[in-house]
Amino acid sequence: VTTDSTVERITSEDLEWLATGTAILGSGGGGSPRIGQLRLESLLEDPEAPDEVELIDPAALDPDATVTSVGQLGSPTIGSEKPPRGDEELRALRALEQRSDRTVDALVPGEIGGANSFAPLVVALQTGLPVVDADAMGRALPELQMDSFFIYGHPVNHAALTDEKGNTIVLSDIDSPERFESLARSTLVGLGGVAGYAYPLLEGSFVADYGVPNTLSLAREVGRRVHAAREGRADHDPVTAAVEATGGSRLFRGTVQSVERDHTDGFTTGEVRLEQASGTGECRVAFQNEYLLAERDGEIIATVPDIVSLLDSETGTPVLSDVVQFGQRVDVVGVPATDLFRTERALAVVGPQAFGYDCEYVGLDG
Amino acid sequence: VTTDSTVERITSEDLEWLATGTAILGSGGGGSPRIGQLRLESLLEDPEAPDEVELIDPAALDPDATVTSVGQLGSPTIGSEKPPRGDEELRALRALEQRSDRTVDALVPGEIGGANSFAPLVVALQTGLPVVDADAMGRALPELQMDSFFIYGHPVNHAALTDEKGNTIVLSDIDSPERFESLARSTLVGLGGVAGYAYPLLEGSFVADYGVPNTLSLAREVGRRVHAAREGRADHDPVTAAVEATGGSRLFRGTVQSVERDHTDGFTTGEVRLEQASGTGECRVAFQNEYLLAERDGEIIATVPDIVSLLDSETGTPVLSDVVQFGQRVDVVGVPATDLFRTERALAVVGPQAFGYDCEYVGLDG
Repeated sequence: VTTDSTVERITSEDLEWLATGTAILGSGGGGSPRIGQLRLESLLEDPEAPDEVELIDPAALDPDATVTSVGQLGSPTIGSEKPPRGDEELRALRALEQRSDRTVDALVPGEIGGANSFAPLVVALQTGLPVVDADAMGRALPELQMDSFFIYGHPVNHAALTDEKGNTIVLSDIDSPERFESLARSTLVGLGGVAGYAYPLLEGSFVADYGVPNTLSLAREVGRRVHAAREGRADHDPVTAAVEATGGSRLFRGTVQSVERDHTDGFTTGEVRLEQASGTGECRVAFQNEYLLAERDGEIIATVPDIVSLLDSETGTPVLSDVVQFGQRVDVVGVPATDLFRTERALAVVGPQAFGYDCEYVGLDG
Repeated sequence: VTTDSTVERITSEDLEWLATGTAILGSGGGGSPRIGQLRLESLLEDPEAPDEVELIDPAALDPDATVTSVGQLGSPTIGSEKPPRGDEELRALRALEQRSDRTVDALVPGEIGGANSFAPLVVALQTGLPVVDADAMGRALPELQMDSFFIYGHPVNHAALTDEKGNTIVLSDIDSPERFESLARSTLVGLGGVAGYAYPLLEGSFVADYGVPNTLSLAREVGRRVHAAREGRADHDPVTAAVEATGGSRLFRGTVQSVERDHTDGFTTGEVRLEQASGTGECRVAFQNEYLLAERDGEIIATVPDIVSLLDSETGTPVLSDVVQFGQRVDVVGVPATDLFRTERALAVVGPQAFGYDCEYVGLDG
């Protein structure tokens, strides 16, 4: 499914780097990479499975290839309490193919974030399919319409959801991405809060035009540099490594004073309040699965769709919204969103007002 | 799909009778037959469509035939406020066939009640398929697990739902009828409260064993006799005609004093209170889409799954739960449930306790 031979590969050595990098780019959400990483490790050790995943540059993708995203839908909190059977995404993929009477040629992550960046790699090893080095968000985001393919007009032609009991649901010809979000969300409740997914059926050319390019290899590189700094193999600290590798900036450093967290409608929403070591300033970071808005001393300093990540100040380890807790010392790091999300069309769907915040998008400098 | 030549036919002359008879057997629910009747009349006048529906006795059905139910799901109140496009059930049928890779040979009503007895007849004219003279309830009931096929162990192998905008959802390999009810109900909310359905894929032999036999022809006969009495072509009144034709009994005659009605979770629930003309007795009839329980002077005199219908005392016209109102003079008529619903196994699913009533099933005499 490639038009040339520029193919990267992901092997077992990359997994730690990928786990760290995707969680940093995941803006505090996207679920824990842990389960996906373990599944991937065990498949890479399986003599019957391939020993690497072929990664295709989106620019090199056959324009006529059929591509889909696979991953896990639902609150990351529920996801970690109710471990998957392991073939949910694979069965969703097969249901999608059967329902559409099409064969998928390549997978693409729906978002960059722990769980959903690993899921396509797992399914790639289960099927032998390659993975496109791109995604639909350049980060993680909590709702299904917040997807560059849908924002730029791709129809919700088919979408499959499966749970660990085998229940399988295929939605077809859905009249809007917002309807898809609403239907999938109410379906999830009936499935116990978490499901494997495969959607939509994309053309290679559309993925090349509207996918956020090279985000898997970026995540791996971010992780590689953070780990190098953590292990003393760099001349700066791990947080600085993350800032430099992502092209972002350090927004605040402080200690977590309080976390409000609420689980409703399949989302984990809340706010983290941080104080500077010196006690002279405070920072509030609001989240809905992902960190969405950072406010420093009452002034909004970063908003969705820009990435806001909390990193352990010493190790650079990303601190996700479902585990952040009192007393942690963290740096708040901001990373500018993909250009695909900085247009008026995209900001109507992924800007702060789409999440109910009464403020304009504050664009971080790249 | 028949093993012999005993085939009945439904033609335009039967429609008024069927509308009255299915509404009487529908126990006050099942939706208004009006829209289905109009769709059927217009198809019967269409020179391109067949001019009759072939009705197959379930005992004469090919044991290997593939049979499914088609109809409308959702609150009858919403259904009448949001008229269908007309091909919802047909598109659900086609989605079911595509997803299962099977071809349907015959249709069977899921319940006897205005809307859902007519829907298979409409789809029969749209497709040329025959209709089995049977159903899965012998009446109408509000929840999907309350179905003789599911009660007697048929799996929810595939089920398709479609709305008037073309949104199509296929549920497959659903692990229990209760899960199916819950998933379908939450999906309905995302579809605006009403949808066309096709489910499940049944074998002819299973329909012959666990379908409630000959309920369409019974409904037609009930309607024929009520209309004959109404038009003075019988030596008794229309309500007596209904009682005799159904094998039921007259439980109460009175005037509607009050109706409580509440629309929640896609159901219309409430209670009708009647007083005798003489003022010496009162009767309360509780409903959840269908009439479920009748109480006379504090004593429970009929319960689900037996049929409880309210008929206009003069004309015998069935008065459905979504339109019954203050001041109407009605007879409360009870009809014993099918034997398939009088077993312990069935009563656990369709008895009064399944609806939250703290009482045993009061079986009416046949």
